[in-house]
Parts: sequence; structure tokens; C-alpha cells
Amino acid sequence: MTIKLTRHTSNPLIKPMDIKPLFTDFKVDSVFNAGVVKYDDDILLLLRVAESLKVKNGYDLSVPVIENNGKHHSLVIKTFNTKTDAEEYDFSDSRSISTKDENGNKKTKYLTSLSHLRIGRSKDGINFSIEDKAFIFPSQKYETWGIEDPRITKIGNVFYINYTGVSQYGACTVLAKTFDFKTYERLGVIFPPENKDVTIFPEKINGLYYAYHRPVPKSIGSPNIWTATSPDLINWGNHNHFMGTTDIGWESGRIGGGAPSFKTEKGWIHIYHAADKNDRYCLGAFITELDDPTKLIAKTKEPILEPEESYELKGFFDSVVFTCGLIIEGNKVKIYYGAADKYIALAEIDLQNLYKALEID
Amino acid sequence: MTIKLTRHTSNPLIKPMDIKPLFTDFKVDSVFNAGVVKYDDDILLLLRVAESLKVKNGYDLSVPVIENNGKHHSLVIKTFNTKTDAEEYDFSDSRSISTKDENGNKKTKYLTSLSHLRIGRSKDGINFSIEDKAFIFPSQKYETWGIEDPRITKIGNVFYINYTGVSQYGACTVLAKTFDFKTYERLGVIFPPENKDVTIFPEKINGLYYAYHRPVPKSIGSPNIWTATSPDLINWGNHNHFMGTTDIGWESGRIGGGAPSFKTEKGWIHIYHAADKNDRYCLGAFITELDDPTKLIAKTKEPILEPEESYELKGFFDSVVFTCGLIIEGNKVKIYYGAADKYIALAEIDLQNLYKALEID
Repeated sequence: MTIKLTRHTSNPLIKPMDIKPLFTDFKVDSVFNAGVVKYDDDILLLLRVAESLKVKNGYDLSVPVIENNGKHHSLVIKTFNTKTDAEEYDFSDSRSISTKDENGNKKTKYLTSLSHLRIGRSKDGINFSIEDKAFIFPSQKYETWGIEDPRITKIGNVFYINYTGVSQYGACTVLAKTFDFKTYERLGVIFPPENKDVTIFPEKINGLYYAYHRPVPKSIGSPNIWTATSPDLINWGNHNHFMGTTDIGWESGRIGGGAPSFKTEKGWIHIYHAADKNDRYCLGAFITELDDPTKLIAKTKEPILEPEESYELKGFFDSVVFTCGLIIEGNKVKIYYGAADKYIALAEIDLQNLYKALEID
Repeated sequence: MTIKLTRHTSNPLIKPMDIKPLFTDFKVDSVFNAGVVKYDDDILLLLRVAESLKVKNGYDLSVPVIENNGKHHSLVIKTFNTKTDAEEYDFSDSRSISTKDENGNKKTKYLTSLSHLRIGRSKDGINFSIEDKAFIFPSQKYETWGIEDPRITKIGNVFYINYTGVSQYGACTVLAKTFDFKTYERLGVIFPPENKDVTIFPEKINGLYYAYHRPVPKSIGSPNIWTATSPDLINWGNHNHFMGTTDIGWESGRIGGGAPSFKTEKGWIHIYHAADKNDRYCLGAFITELDDPTKLIAKTKEPILEPEESYELKGFFDSVVFTCGLIIEGNKVKIYYGAADKYIALAEIDLQNLYKALEID
């Protein structure tokens, strides 16, 4: 019998309609892929909120983009005519506008929505009060197309937040830190493009910080999970391939880190995501040695969560479950996940059952 | 008037026929893209030597690959039948064997030749005595398809060598060090896939090591030059986009570091490579501030060397000039370069003329 996560009956917990758009004339398309941490007796979600322009006149398609002149940044609305611009641009994907290069390779030129990071707080982990303003809004050179998929790692009294910065330069991983979720400081790009799904361990192991990261090479190789170590969280090295895609099945398209690993008596457990060749995203789990998170002990053979419910099957991008964070309460592992790139949902599992799913009980 | 490098009259200096193959039944296809350093009164070239199988029976195509079982490595010969295997594999590119994935994207599966690094020594910089054995032979997990394009940076009494490791995991940058060019130590992967054309500065600047690197993102972005800094040469961070491809012209396809930067009174000068959309590779130069190599002062508008001679136009891969190293002798900058991915050649320029090419004299 395959062991699965149990979905919360209130799913989806947060929907786009629960979020106030930041700007007039914008609508919220999606609220998903949240970093999760306990802070000040609250369960705090750092939500990825994607907004796009509400109005659409005839053949017009307007997209938001950040422009940064080196000193200041501004929100700029670019408008295309999907009829007259169809010679130059491809509008067939609702998520992006692309062109084709001379070799026929599709090149993304704009995203139709812009993501920022916003805070939600809850006492019960189910009912969230969501701020009307952004906590981190894209503003840097590497964020002009938005910031996405935050992970939070508490080390000492510092909350480290890593997120994906998307721009014409590619998708890279930016590190920031906060003490209070009121102000924050950006610490720069820690993994250059194309690299996302970075998760940082909450403590040093044998004197070094560890992270999983997911480079996406162009000419050779697949989107696989790698490990790296760091003396200071800023500079990373000792890169090693950790876990790869499979030829067939639910992990055949891409594989990447999910929620930052958590410590158990049996090892570090990590909830990760994998997609098949049809971009159907599932969650799995693996466990590594306590004193060496590059050493795999076991992984789940089947997904512990796969898109089955309507809010997972149909959304901004269909058939996706994807996590960026979880909390542990007693014996329960509570996994917050993005559903269909549109909603926030929750699923949980007892630690003992997770051991069983990993076949290490 | 565009200022160009002056080719040496003895070009090409080193040809495949000057190199003894490492293995019986192998031939040397290419000797190119050499790291360069002065050592022990010699000019030492660390040559990239590419070998492939000599014999070819009928439709057979045999390719060399390194297998590493975690403890040992071995050289394995894989043989394909270009007729009966044509359903599964694409043999049309002489450099590689590929397949197509379900989206029609070409995926490289094997290289037809295997590169290693070999030492050549010379008193005059023209006539080289080349060792019969490899200095660094591919043997690690990230090198199973060969090691390529070394750069050498002398820091104190240590020679740091970074090279491209190619394997099924992608093309990444590996760091090694030697004191004597007799033994060496690998220090691990410093830039994960896809990243090559890494050049390390020969001294700390404001307390940090600097490097240029060239990530190749898959979905968004171009093959551009980035900067990074490091406290220790092993761990790298503070990644920033430095110089990009252009829409048209000789830099429109890809751009990447060449020889490690050298210090002048006017700034750090770097000889880099760029290719247009037809994969025609040229050399250019740029100069950055002495106390901040992320700050560009000037770059050459036109190539300072472009493929024109027969040995540059026709080889293993046509129309390529590409450098990994140079030496300074008095006022002369002597640039060793790979020609048509097959030969080693030399071209030089007076420092004053290089300033003129950069329009900073």
C-alpha cells in the first residue's frame, strides 16, 4: 500500500480572491508556493502572489515588468497587439510572450504576470490574515520579471529567505535575511542562472552550511538536484550531483528541492517535487544521513502527493502540487503546498507514516 | 583603422601530428585551447588534446567514454552502428552522438572524442616539447566525457588550474592545483552546470578573489559573462551579470572569458571570445578598473582577431579562434589560441596598441 499525505478538509486554504491586488487595474491570478515558518506564535506564510493587468481591450495584451535604471526601479506596463504583433511574438502560452531564435528555439521575452512575496499570518495554520502590501517586491536587476518560490530557513535568530529572481538574465537564486518580517536585507545572488529550488539546511553540519540546488543546464544534462556547501551562506562551493531524473515515470521531467530539510532521529527528511515529461508535478520524500546530507538513506518510490483534487488539477498551470515549506507540530508534518500554480493548500502526515513511506520504520 | 593582433609566422605552432596518442588504436584529432604560464624558465602550455578511435569498420562508430564506479575509473569503448542505430541516435554531427527528447530537443549522449590535458614546454615560446603522457586525465564523475579548456592562474607559489568537466551531468568547472606540474590535486566543482570559460584573477582585490564565469541558462537568458567573488577560491558568491551578447554582429551568439585578466597601469585587461549566431568565434579585449574588475572601462568594438587563415577556417570545428592563456614579455602581449578547434597558434600585440584598440591610449 502506498502511503499518501492527508489533505486538509478546508483546502484550498488561500485563493486569489482572498488577496488584495497591489495596484489599481491589476488582478491577482495566483497565490501559491509559500515559504513557511513559525514566528511570534503565528504560522507565517511568505506567499508568492502573481498579479496581472485586469483590463483587456480587443486584441491588446498588457504585461507588467520592472525597469531598473541602476538607481531606481519602476513598474512599467507593456502593451502588445496579439493580432498585429503575432509576426514577431508568440502569444499562445498564457504565462508568457516569446519569440523564436534563428534555430527555432523558443525564447521567453515577457511573463504575463508579475510575482512578489507577501506575508500571511495564522494562529491555527488554517485561517490566514494576509497583508495588503508586499513584503518583498521585485526591484533589482535580476528581478525585473518577478520574484518567486521563497524558502525560509531560521538560523539562530535570523530568518534567511531565498527566492528565485527572474529577469532577461535568467532565473537565479537570491538570498535575503530578516529578523522581524518587517524589514529585510538582500544579500545578493547565491546561485547564478539557471538555478532555482534552493533549500538551505537550518544548522551547520561538520562546520559547513549545506544546500540543495537545482541547476538547469542547456546543452547536456537534466534538471537535477545538486548539493553545495558554504562557510557563510553567501559563498557556495563543493558542488555535487545528488539526485537525478528517471527515464520514465513521475520523476522523468525534472526534480528539485521543496521544503528545507528537517531533522529527525533517523536523518534529515526532505519533501521534494518531481514532474514527469507532461509537466505533472508531484511530491516525494527522501532522507539523508544526519552528519552528511549528501548521503541518501532512502526515498519514496511513489509520490506521497499527486494532483487529484479539482484545485490541483485546474488552475493557472494545471496538475501541480509543489511545496516550499512545512512545519512540524508534535508528531505531525504539515506541508503547505501550491496547487495548480493558483492556490495554497495543506496536507499532513504523521512522522511514523513518513518513515513507513520511506521504508525505514 | 581597426587594430588587430599579429599572427606568428610559424603558425600553427602545434598540430595533432606533433602529439603521440595516449592509447593504441587512438588518433589525435586536435590540440588546442591551452592554459599558459611561465614555469622554471619555460613557457608551459597545458594543452587540451582530443583523441578518438582510429579504426572505423563499415558502419561502425566507436566512441571513448570514462566509466567511474565511485572507486575506480576505466576507459570504455562504445560502438554504434550508424545504419542500424540511426532510429535511436543522430550521428550527423561529427563531434557528438545525440538523441531527441519528446519535445524534439536535441540531447547530447556521447562525444566522439575524449579530451585530456597535456603539458608542452618551450624556451622560445615557439618550439614546444610535448609530454607523451597526460598531466590530468579525466577520471571523476563530472569528467566522464572529457576535460577541456584549462586556464592557469598563479597565486603565490600555487598554480591553480580550472577546466571544464563534461559528463552526462553537464559541463561544469573543476578547480585543481599544482606546485610543480608533476602532481596535482583536484579541489572540486566550483561552478555547477552549465558553466565554463571561468577565469580567476591572479590576486585578491579588496580582500576577495574574483572570477569571470559563463553560465548557460536553458529557458531564459543568453550565454553571457558574469562575475563572482570568493574568500578562498573554493566557495563563490556575489554573482553579477557583467557583459552580454548583442542582438547582431560578432558577439550575437555567445560571449565568454578567455585568458585570465592581466594587470596594467590602466586597469585589468582581459582577452575574451565571442561567437556570432553562425558559431564563428573571434577574440576581443576589455579593460576593467584595477580596484573593481566588475566595472568596465572600455571594450573593443571590433574583433582583435578573427578566423581568416586556413588553419583557423578549416579544422575540427571551422572558423574558430579561442584563447585560454597568454604571457606578457616586456611590452608584448603574446596570446596563445586554439585555431579551428584543431591547432595551437600564437598572435601578439604591443600593449600600447592594445590600449589603442580599447581607445584608452
